[in-house]
Amino acid sequence: MQFHVVTLFPEFFESPLKTSLLGKAIQNGVLGVQTVNPRDFTPYKHGKVDAPPYGGGAGMVMMVEPIARAVASIKERVPDTHTILLSARGRLFDAAYAKKLSQERTSIALICGHYEGVDERVAECVANESLRIGNYVLSGGEVAALTVIDSVARRLAGFMGNSESLTHESFDEGLSFEHPQYTRPEEWQGLKVPEVLLSGNHAKIDAWRNAKAQEDSPRFT
Amino acid sequence: MQFHVVTLFPEFFESPLKTSLLGKAIQNGVLGVQTVNPRDFTPYKHGKVDAPPYGGGAGMVMMVEPIARAVASIKERVPDTHTILLSARGRLFDAAYAKKLSQERTSIALICGHYEGVDERVAECVANESLRIGNYVLSGGEVAALTVIDSVARRLAGFMGNSESLTHESFDEGLSFEHPQYTRPEEWQGLKVPEVLLSGNHAKIDAWRNAKAQEDSPRFT
Repeated sequence: MQFHVVTLFPEFFESPLKTSLLGKAIQNGVLGVQTVNPRDFTPYKHGKVDAPPYGGGAGMVMMVEPIARAVASIKERVPDTHTILLSARGRLFDAAYAKKLSQERTSIALICGHYEGVDERVAECVANESLRIGNYVLSGGEVAALTVIDSVARRLAGFMGNSESLTHESFDEGLSFEHPQYTRPEEWQGLKVPEVLLSGNHAKIDAWRNAKAQEDSPRFT
Repeated sequence: MQFHVVTLFPEFFESPLKTSLLGKAIQNGVLGVQTVNPRDFTPYKHGKVDAPPYGGGAGMVMMVEPIARAVASIKERVPDTHTILLSARGRLFDAAYAKKLSQERTSIALICGHYEGVDERVAECVANESLRIGNYVLSGGEVAALTVIDSVARRLAGFMGNSESLTHESFDEGLSFEHPQYTRPEEWQGLKVPEVLLSGNHAKIDAWRNAKAQEDSPRFT
């Protein structure tokens, strides 16, 4: 799987892509992530990539042409690239869609918006689709791109140390959650591990875990 | 606002916290983010912080004690710290909650899970609450922590260059979206900016934007 991140802030990705499982997977060639900066493709003077919104309003809007050229440069190299704009106006991303992308795509471009937004013509005819990662606003699409990369990449063969880890996956079928986990010590500050987990009875353990997976974690205060 | 991130991978945060608006806000003292590594607080040999799950299953589970001690070290310095566990089993985070946190808290600890999960006793009595950023699974809580930091921090006074940027905020009241934005050029590849935006009629522009804010971005293919 190859990700191409279209971003004005490629430096954002440096340390996350070197860290932990994602870093290892990139090092092992399970996936590749490269950044492409619209600023390197702008036809406008002084590397200009944004301008004030038509109709007025605060802030600056990213222009369509530098982004379109950045995406074209990716498609020149990998024609079969699926292009996603990360935007608060996009469809809601979820685990089922992460799975679908991991199975059906081999090259994905992620366009990160910034400033007050992105010229709507990017959604209309540069990106194949627009996605949001949650019902909140971010200062830029970079965090969202990282979220999509992480949740898609962890489904790729070779990403997890143990592929069994994906079999008890939460969210695959609607909104079931992961079950609670406990590890040593058996008692901590008076709180004991549920006895069923120490029983060695795997049918009972599975039943308990399935029941608990339907509940949220408790709220302490 | 002070964030304390409890993580086994502090290096993850290096470049994102130096970049763009978040980097600037930290530099200007609008917010602070420090990392605390449970590995520095573990009472177990060889810096051990995880162990296999009771009841069997793949992978390793993060132990409660190193996390509890890391959080205690934060609360020693800042007693009024609100502690959040980032977990697929948590409540769904959204813009309304980001706003609430930005207004009601001055110190927030974010516990990042990793491996197969975190001993449930962290949710039961170390964290004040558990949150998830979306209906998908991540390889670790670090990306989720960054999402919460970004969406909360951007609401703080002094974060955005122009505070007007928050007035037309999406998601504040339920699921209304941001309106489409357009900038120069007026025509691009045959696609024109909607005429209303060039009209100079601000009442009409507002009405158009409000109507359009209810729609998702179009899907191209």
